[in-house]
Amino acid sequence: MEFSSKLLEEAVNRIARLPGIGRKTALRLALHLIRSDASETRELTTALRALRDGIRFCSTCFNISDTEVCAICSSHRRDRSVICVVEDLRDVMAIENTAQFQGLYHVLGGVISPVQGVGPGDLRIDALVVRLTESGSPVKEVILALSPTMEGDTTAFYIHKKISGLSIRVTSIARGIPVGGDLEFADEITLGRSITARTEMR
Amino acid sequence: MEFSSKLLEEAVNRIARLPGIGRKTALRLALHLIRSDASETRELTTALRALRDGIRFCSTCFNISDTEVCAICSSHRRDRSVICVVEDLRDVMAIENTAQFQGLYHVLGGVISPVQGVGPGDLRIDALVVRLTESGSPVKEVILALSPTMEGDTTAFYIHKKISGLSIRVTSIARGIPVGGDLEFADEITLGRSITARTEMR
Repeated sequence: MEFSSKLLEEAVNRIARLPGIGRKTALRLALHLIRSDASETRELTTALRALRDGIRFCSTCFNISDTEVCAICSSHRRDRSVICVVEDLRDVMAIENTAQFQGLYHVLGGVISPVQGVGPGDLRIDALVVRLTESGSPVKEVILALSPTMEGDTTAFYIHKKISGLSIRVTSIARGIPVGGDLEFADEITLGRSITARTEMR
Repeated sequence: MEFSSKLLEEAVNRIARLPGIGRKTALRLALHLIRSDASETRELTTALRALRDGIRFCSTCFNISDTEVCAICSSHRRDRSVICVVEDLRDVMAIENTAQFQGLYHVLGGVISPVQGVGPGDLRIDALVVRLTESGSPVKEVILALSPTMEGDTTAFYIHKKISGLSIRVTSIARGIPVGGDLEFADEITLGRSITARTEMR
């Protein structure tokens, strides 16, 4: 790709560094900004800078927050006896959208992945242990809501080992056939687990 | 989608205004910037602002340029007797990549589209006519390289009508079966045109 403008080339190179955006898409986005009103670029860049420079993580659950303690951790309506352990913020948002969970969260910031060089020390597992063992901790159950991948399962296993001595109930979200899913198209492992973990008809 | 941070919400809203980027992708990009080094966000936003505030259009052909007259228009190696009329900058880049065209360009900045409210007055058609009619103009041929869509054909027809009295040769790029394309999968109109516009074997 040859550019008639260095400014355009630099902008396209920078946009194309974002994950999942190739050079053709980057060029399309850059041309969109050129064509739109200058305020659009100004507001976009201001929002991105404000986000990067101003973002904080809740000191308790490590969810993204504008305040020292996030809205969930500081709410008096949440059940402090249950902590749901998730990989990242998107999982918190997904679970919050279900409106099925009233407890608190603990955001690990990733999963153990030897391939990508992520070890237990890179995640907030120690902070979770501190949270569970501090005097007066009301936590009775830890729900591991991690992806059913090799990395997710490894992380769940590691955390389970680490906190199994604390006389806290450790559970995992159910694996099974998705609602609306077709038995025919389910893989054998999922189908197998859904039979092992069958529930009573109610 | 509920956000635990106003900064994140604002950034996602701004990113999601870009064409072809939905809210899920916007969230993924915002989280990527949060996780990456702060310099990445700074360099991205600096490049976007520099592009939007610094970009200029060549005063002759309206191609994007960092200078008053673009590199193509100011080059002494280009053939000034042929002007290739294109919709936008991406077409200039695509044609330049073929290395088959040695003339100059004229960037319309769009095509006539009543549906999107784009009329001839919104494009640089008058500037093209001025370019062709000014005293001492060396132009002998205008190549219309517009997309073979309803809008592209309308624009080509409009420009042809407008400049047909100038005793300048007006041509259109060839429509036909793409190289590597299969006859079987070509639509009837393309196949029909490729027969009408058949060329001598050489």
